[in-house]
Amino acid sequence: MSPTLARFFPILQWGRAYDRKALSGDMLAAVIVTIMLIPQSLAYALLAGLPPEAGLYASIAPIILYAIFGTSRALAVGPVAVVSLMTAAAIGNIAEQGTMGYALAALTLAGLSGVILLVMGLLRLGFLANFLSHPVIAGFITASGILIATSQVKHILGISAGGDTLPEMVWSLAEHLTATNWITATIGITATAFLFWVRKSLKPLLRRAGLGPRAADMLTKAGPVLAVVVTTLAVWGLNLADQGVKIVGAVPTGLPPLTLPSFSSDLISLLLLPALLISLIGFVESVSVAQTLAAKKRQRIDPDQELIGLGAANIAAALTGGYPVTGGFARSVVNFDAGAETPAAGIFTAVGLAIAAIALTPLIFFLPTATLAATIIVAVLSLVDFSILKRSWSYSRADFTAVAATILLTLGLGVETGVSAGVLLSIALHLYTTSRPHIAEVGLVPGTQHFRNINRHDVLTEPSLLTIRIDESLYFANARFLEDFIADRVATGCPIRNVVLMCSAINEIDLSALESLESINHRLGTTGIKLHLSEVKGPVMDRLERSHFLQQLTGQVFLSQYDAVRALSPTVIPPAARTA
Amino acid sequence: MSPTLARFFPILQWGRAYDRKALSGDMLAAVIVTIMLIPQSLAYALLAGLPPEAGLYASIAPIILYAIFGTSRALAVGPVAVVSLMTAAAIGNIAEQGTMGYALAALTLAGLSGVILLVMGLLRLGFLANFLSHPVIAGFITASGILIATSQVKHILGISAGGDTLPEMVWSLAEHLTATNWITATIGITATAFLFWVRKSLKPLLRRAGLGPRAADMLTKAGPVLAVVVTTLAVWGLNLADQGVKIVGAVPTGLPPLTLPSFSSDLISLLLLPALLISLIGFVESVSVAQTLAAKKRQRIDPDQELIGLGAANIAAALTGGYPVTGGFARSVVNFDAGAETPAAGIFTAVGLAIAAIALTPLIFFLPTATLAATIIVAVLSLVDFSILKRSWSYSRADFTAVAATILLTLGLGVETGVSAGVLLSIALHLYTTSRPHIAEVGLVPGTQHFRNINRHDVLTEPSLLTIRIDESLYFANARFLEDFIADRVATGCPIRNVVLMCSAINEIDLSALESLESINHRLGTTGIKLHLSEVKGPVMDRLERSHFLQQLTGQVFLSQYDAVRALSPTVIPPAARTA
Repeated sequence: MSPTLARFFPILQWGRAYDRKALSGDMLAAVIVTIMLIPQSLAYALLAGLPPEAGLYASIAPIILYAIFGTSRALAVGPVAVVSLMTAAAIGNIAEQGTMGYALAALTLAGLSGVILLVMGLLRLGFLANFLSHPVIAGFITASGILIATSQVKHILGISAGGDTLPEMVWSLAEHLTATNWITATIGITATAFLFWVRKSLKPLLRRAGLGPRAADMLTKAGPVLAVVVTTLAVWGLNLADQGVKIVGAVPTGLPPLTLPSFSSDLISLLLLPALLISLIGFVESVSVAQTLAAKKRQRIDPDQELIGLGAANIAAALTGGYPVTGGFARSVVNFDAGAETPAAGIFTAVGLAIAAIALTPLIFFLPTATLAATIIVAVLSLVDFSILKRSWSYSRADFTAVAATILLTLGLGVETGVSAGVLLSIALHLYTTSRPHIAEVGLVPGTQHFRNINRHDVLTEPSLLTIRIDESLYFANARFLEDFIADRVATGCPIRNVVLMCSAINEIDLSALESLESINHRLGTTGIKLHLSEVKGPVMDRLERSHFLQQLTGQVFLSQYDAVRALSPTVIPPAARTA
Repeated sequence: MSPTLARFFPILQWGRAYDRKALSGDMLAAVIVTIMLIPQSLAYALLAGLPPEAGLYASIAPIILYAIFGTSRALAVGPVAVVSLMTAAAIGNIAEQGTMGYALAALTLAGLSGVILLVMGLLRLGFLANFLSHPVIAGFITASGILIATSQVKHILGISAGGDTLPEMVWSLAEHLTATNWITATIGITATAFLFWVRKSLKPLLRRAGLGPRAADMLTKAGPVLAVVVTTLAVWGLNLADQGVKIVGAVPTGLPPLTLPSFSSDLISLLLLPALLISLIGFVESVSVAQTLAAKKRQRIDPDQELIGLGAANIAAALTGGYPVTGGFARSVVNFDAGAETPAAGIFTAVGLAIAAIALTPLIFFLPTATLAATIIVAVLSLVDFSILKRSWSYSRADFTAVAATILLTLGLGVETGVSAGVLLSIALHLYTTSRPHIAEVGLVPGTQHFRNINRHDVLTEPSLLTIRIDESLYFANARFLEDFIADRVATGCPIRNVVLMCSAINEIDLSALESLESINHRLGTTGIKLHLSEVKGPVMDRLERSHFLQQLTGQVFLSQYDAVRALSPTVIPPAARTA
């Protein structure tokens, strides 16, 4: 088997080692995940503004494609809450919910997202996801959780309301509140309370009743299924649909249909930016889940191959009546905990869901949408975690600013603006910090060959020798800053004869910075002061040697700062060490 | 005098020390600069697509305002080539040249630019200009020079042609070439050749004829005036205007009029981005000239106060019939060389130009526009310098990419796209570099306490101790990179018991990177490997102490790498030094 083939088709690797033990683990995990996914896929389709079957379809073909191309053993791919919300936000302004245009736009969004992920993977651009910083993602997920939960309140109350941002949603809910259908509200609120209780209190109860930890966990995860069954039976038995309780209704029976996304350039240009954001957010969420789970079993994830796997999954979604998918946190953890050994578990899950699509859809005719809304609300409120605000506040004001802005803008202006602003702001804050670097004057720590900041440590110095350590790479944004600092410092310190630039923290000197160094060297030279460098790193030195700077330099380049001091100001060094 | 007042009104400082010597220097410089500026202001107005008097007006009030608020002693403010071109590009799509709307848009552009500069100065945002890197500016100026020269060829040939980009201009010239007016072309080509000869060969000739270097220099600078006088007389004497030679024609006589920019929000929103780019480019050009000249006399420039000075000058231009202005290179150097001691030279220049506006405008009725075009071509071709391509190619591929892209995009898509793309690309390349940092394994240089890369130096190491020096601040874009590197390295090196992260090049650890460090620490801990830090800088340590990381750290924090090795792997250190 060629290594390239194995890289692009991880299935060839795990497939040949597949055995009976892996099979039994994968089968069990697939049964549990299938039971969990049936209500979840229906609910997330509702959140995305699509008919319920779109959620099922988005869970079948994509999961198989990911199993072939993905590198994670436990990741479960399908519709997830945040991506469903982003899908609704992206399409909401283009087409009316419930129309063919809306469904077509969802297919197109999935197709675009798949192509973007695939191309990024083939070009090995996985590193781009690193520009979504942890605090920005944390803030975005928290704000999205609030938006999602708020968007479901209308289904709980049985009213119609709209809005893409928190103020719009709250305003619209308030306007329609008087139209509340009290039977729907009773079902919705009871289901929500029940599911919260299941999540919080059922597991300890079952444990106390003598169940093993894993069985208790699995039963807890089946809570939503119970809520679905009970409320469906209640609506059917009591004829509540006639009282205005909204139900899922007729869902087509059968395997996912073959579909084609739109190739209209107008639609594509409208959806391109949302597709890019959905791809990045989905990729980041998926990879971080996959890495967490892989680390537990000492396996490794290849982020660039993950892009290919997720790209293939999204293209599959576009061709089989789905919408954008990614690796979900909750379902992947359940899959892992239930003992999934290989991606074959995903293939078995797909088979289970296909059976559901063929055989079970008539049974959910009377399922009230309020129950689906309740499962969404309970699932996403666990995403809401404001502790990132406290953590970042105490650690760094820049990180806090990025988090707070992401949360506020996501809530106030919508998901796309929120996450874009968060990314741009965190990059801008980083650039701002590096454009005004920390600069320290350093001296010798007595009894060592080590140099530290004269303001923080008791160190030895000599007035004719000024040693400056600049704590940043030198590049265009801070080149002039160093020029100004040295000009000011030299103007105030009269007897200076030598300036040493200690370069231990300089990882790059770009052309702008080189010009600044040349001008510092020249300006110091005209006042009779020599400029020296010390501790210049290999890659930086290689580059300086390709310029004329080293010939122009009035002073020398020293391997270490200690060598520089020994040569330029030997009186600082204790007599015993001077000859060493 | 309060220091705040003196900061905002530098005139109060130099004004009270003003004496007879300064007066005579300033007067002489003003006379020379006035003679140079008359043809130049007319020509640059032509370049901006405005009537010639707009160039004169833009040189009178703005220069006075700058003299009050600016910090440079020698900077001469007024219309300059690049900003004139950018003005034409910004307004060209909004209004027709020669209409009232066009002039109004120019006033509005100057007003907006003035407000932007003023606000940036009051908020002390001068550092923003540093994000225009030297290579991007050099590439932009070179490409602008080519665009400007090409845009003037139509005046030299007496044809009408258009276009904002090089391909458009060349195509339009080729289309109209057959309509060339041969008399105009004779004047234009002769004037251009004469001015090139003056620039290249006149000065050495005058020096050989026995003139002093300064007198020779000044006479050379008067070349354009001679060309203006001779060609104007020729057109008048030979009645060439009747033969189709385009002339300047009637220019209003009198002081600059009082004008108001437009406050239409439509126009303002169209001009906002161009105004921002003009402000930044103008500021960068102006400050670099001012700093070069100030350094020669050991004076200092305050960039934030320069923003205020240039802002006031542009607002003055908006109120007196001008268009965007900034500090020009050529005129400032002439001013400096001619002996200007204080900004009073600028005030005297303004008086000289005001006299010209009142008394001389009838004399330029017959001045052919071809002569003005010739002065522009000769002036801007000195800006064209492709050596930056060679310098950046040999020094750094990233810088080269930024320069080449800026030049190509400016020529191919116009000035605004070119400079924006250059800035964004240089930021993106910088982020890319820092997202994949250089990481070195280091060992002890024998006989010292200094640690260097094991691949570049003969150093002492010990297999159970892995020391990693990461040559970059740790932030969101590279946090995962370090995680992956350590995971891979540890997986291959079996006997490792201690990992030391040498932090001498780490200037910042943001929250994302802190989370990565926590996960590295945790992951190493589960395999029985301890993580240590060494040479952590003061500001970074302060921040780590505000988190829980140091309590979780499985190893220690060492002041120096030498201390770390002495504690963790003492056999590396020669026996004699171990007790030191």
